[in-house]
Amino acid sequence: MEKTKVAIVGLGTVGSGVAKLLLDYGDRTARHAGRTLWLEQVVVRDVTKPRDCELPEGLLSADLARITSDPEITAVAHLLGGLEPARTIMLALLESGKDVVTANKALLAEHGPELFDRARELGRSIAFEASVAGGIPIIAAISQCLSANQILSLNAILNGTSNFVLTQMEEQGISYAEALAAAQRRGYAEADPTMDVDGTDTAQKLAILAHLAFGARVHWRDIPRQGIDTLDFADMMYAKELGYRIKLLAVAELVNGDLELHVSPTLVRCGTPLAEVRSAYNAISVVGDAVGRVFFHGLGAGQMPTASAVVADLIDTVVGRTAITFRTLELWSQREALVASREHDRTAGRFYMRFQVADRPGVMSEITGVLGRQGISIASVIQHEAAETDRDVVPLVIMTHHATEGATRRAKEEIDRLPAVRPGSVRMRVRD
Amino acid sequence: MEKTKVAIVGLGTVGSGVAKLLLDYGDRTARHAGRTLWLEQVVVRDVTKPRDCELPEGLLSADLARITSDPEITAVAHLLGGLEPARTIMLALLESGKDVVTANKALLAEHGPELFDRARELGRSIAFEASVAGGIPIIAAISQCLSANQILSLNAILNGTSNFVLTQMEEQGISYAEALAAAQRRGYAEADPTMDVDGTDTAQKLAILAHLAFGARVHWRDIPRQGIDTLDFADMMYAKELGYRIKLLAVAELVNGDLELHVSPTLVRCGTPLAEVRSAYNAISVVGDAVGRVFFHGLGAGQMPTASAVVADLIDTVVGRTAITFRTLELWSQREALVASREHDRTAGRFYMRFQVADRPGVMSEITGVLGRQGISIASVIQHEAAETDRDVVPLVIMTHHATEGATRRAKEEIDRLPAVRPGSVRMRVRD
Repeated sequence: MEKTKVAIVGLGTVGSGVAKLLLDYGDRTARHAGRTLWLEQVVVRDVTKPRDCELPEGLLSADLARITSDPEITAVAHLLGGLEPARTIMLALLESGKDVVTANKALLAEHGPELFDRARELGRSIAFEASVAGGIPIIAAISQCLSANQILSLNAILNGTSNFVLTQMEEQGISYAEALAAAQRRGYAEADPTMDVDGTDTAQKLAILAHLAFGARVHWRDIPRQGIDTLDFADMMYAKELGYRIKLLAVAELVNGDLELHVSPTLVRCGTPLAEVRSAYNAISVVGDAVGRVFFHGLGAGQMPTASAVVADLIDTVVGRTAITFRTLELWSQREALVASREHDRTAGRFYMRFQVADRPGVMSEITGVLGRQGISIASVIQHEAAETDRDVVPLVIMTHHATEGATRRAKEEIDRLPAVRPGSVRMRVRD
Repeated sequence: MEKTKVAIVGLGTVGSGVAKLLLDYGDRTARHAGRTLWLEQVVVRDVTKPRDCELPEGLLSADLARITSDPEITAVAHLLGGLEPARTIMLALLESGKDVVTANKALLAEHGPELFDRARELGRSIAFEASVAGGIPIIAAISQCLSANQILSLNAILNGTSNFVLTQMEEQGISYAEALAAAQRRGYAEADPTMDVDGTDTAQKLAILAHLAFGARVHWRDIPRQGIDTLDFADMMYAKELGYRIKLLAVAELVNGDLELHVSPTLVRCGTPLAEVRSAYNAISVVGDAVGRVFFHGLGAGQMPTASAVVADLIDTVVGRTAITFRTLELWSQREALVASREHDRTAGRFYMRFQVADRPGVMSEITGVLGRQGISIASVIQHEAAETDRDVVPLVIMTHHATEGATRRAKEEIDRLPAVRPGSVRMRVRD
């Protein structure tokens, strides 16, 4: 059987998983690729570091030239995290004639246009199924399987850590801090989970999907985003009372030809597929104008789910499918966008608002007066009797009808300035 | 921009949808294919038949030679139903050098090995994403995106008509006959729905998936199957009481290296994703040894969802991806199977049984005695008090622990012969 030499750069969690699939299950990849994917080189920064992966003698080195100078190695799994030296190494691989497979969404979200344009100039390809939603084949779905559609919207849960924390808070009735600690103990959150819980990771993945699905040219930093790190347990309980669960939702939606993009904790109606996504799972709900709604659910992270996507990309690359996709579909570019981003203030939907108010006559009228002047119509209100211990401040929860981001933001700012309103107001989107 | 000529044979519901996507949204397919897919010919049996689709002058004819004799037409959407002349026409298209895209699962399930081997001999390809689960990209997922995995199991709802009928029965509290009539009125069931409701359609689709996912060489007729056409409303109510919904489930699962395959109405535990599939939707839950569980949900039939899959296949075909997949992956063949089918009697799981029994002493003991002798352990029993009007016969519902198909089948046969047991016993699988 024909043999194609491949290599791995970076032997962390995902790299070890990829090595395992290539070394231990070579017959399987051979059956699906029609040839053997022969792991020829593994390059790491520090060869002395202990690894949870056994490699045959002579495979491991710290010398990138062992890959770049070997013309028989045609495809490389680039599994380094961070931006540098990941970017420089990816460029070096492309320059030396290698096709690249990567799982590094931060690198693509930051330097995607540069890297993709360079790959095109060099006649090379970059495959990146593993960069978004791990084992869920959402990149192939959007760029290939749904290519007869105009994608109308994407609603997605793309960060397993955040979803695990939210599920724990809800199911165990614990605070954000306690749930995050539980996630760290169980390996679902890193020691520094900032990028996961503040919405950065989700925004980076959403930027990649928006490029693919809509031809957007948005930088992830320009996507309005909020994480779950400021979430109050009280709001989870009110959401539940209203028939919703709070999820960190990434949204990309065409509205009158403009693209609405945001990442935010959102009240998602119980019983809808996205509300039922539990633990560290990811999910994407895609609406195409021909296909209707297609829903994908699976593990968005972890060693083997991610390695599964990387090896599928390696197979696609060595058999030549990736090159075709890369050439025919204008994947990411510094060229002009096909669609403009909608101004965030003009995006609209229903909103959940909670105010901490003094329990005295006239407050409700003042607040609803502000909402009315901003043109915001109220769908429902919850105000429970104040607890004995905290008689002078009561939470007031308001669900709005359809309203804009701008109007609700301005209303909240105005309400926050009322003398009867205490700090700590909350405003969240609602997805029915 | 480069122009590739394509053609359509058969202008029924799906064919009209494909024509619409190619004619009205050519810019979109051009963007995703890197070239224009130019609809050059549409061939039908009867050009005088009224159509819900406007075609440009000169496109429509009843002459297949206008396609087969035009060397510039490289890819053809073959959208004829049934086995003949669909098979003969597909062979003629392949012989004349065309790559073929089809949605005809019955044809593939019946003649797949012959057609695929012939296409390979001729250096041509057959793409068939639309043949299973309409708009859900399950063929691409299994044959391409999950190719680093050994697939361990597929559990799927593949017939929208049956799922619509089951949902109506459950939500509206109506009988099978009433629900089927509602499905026919709303266009979810054909005038003759036999193949949909008796499990044939589902078994044909399962055979295709089993070939792809497991390298099985099973003929759909050899898949043990039961439809929803004999389902009693009473069992839906008992299922609900036990915390389950009845779904027409297609199962392919590796058990100790053998492949277990069957199609049957199954009690699926409420809250699991498959139990929540409503109306005419389809869904597939795939478990791979690397990726874990991936769940797909979408419209499994209908004009535009199916056309979406056909046009995606046409794009894959004209850009060359299909040829690679077809060549590298040994898609379907008359060659030897990679896996043997497990003898149906040896397949195992939990079972639901209902017996209509005379309300007199000793009956329970006789029935449980039979189950005990067959090694079947009882998990739970429901026996409600008999209705006033029907005092002498009461339903006895039994949920078993893990047991084999053979043991439960034999036990039911033996119990049916007991003098106290009336006709109409029911035995169904359970999926927790």
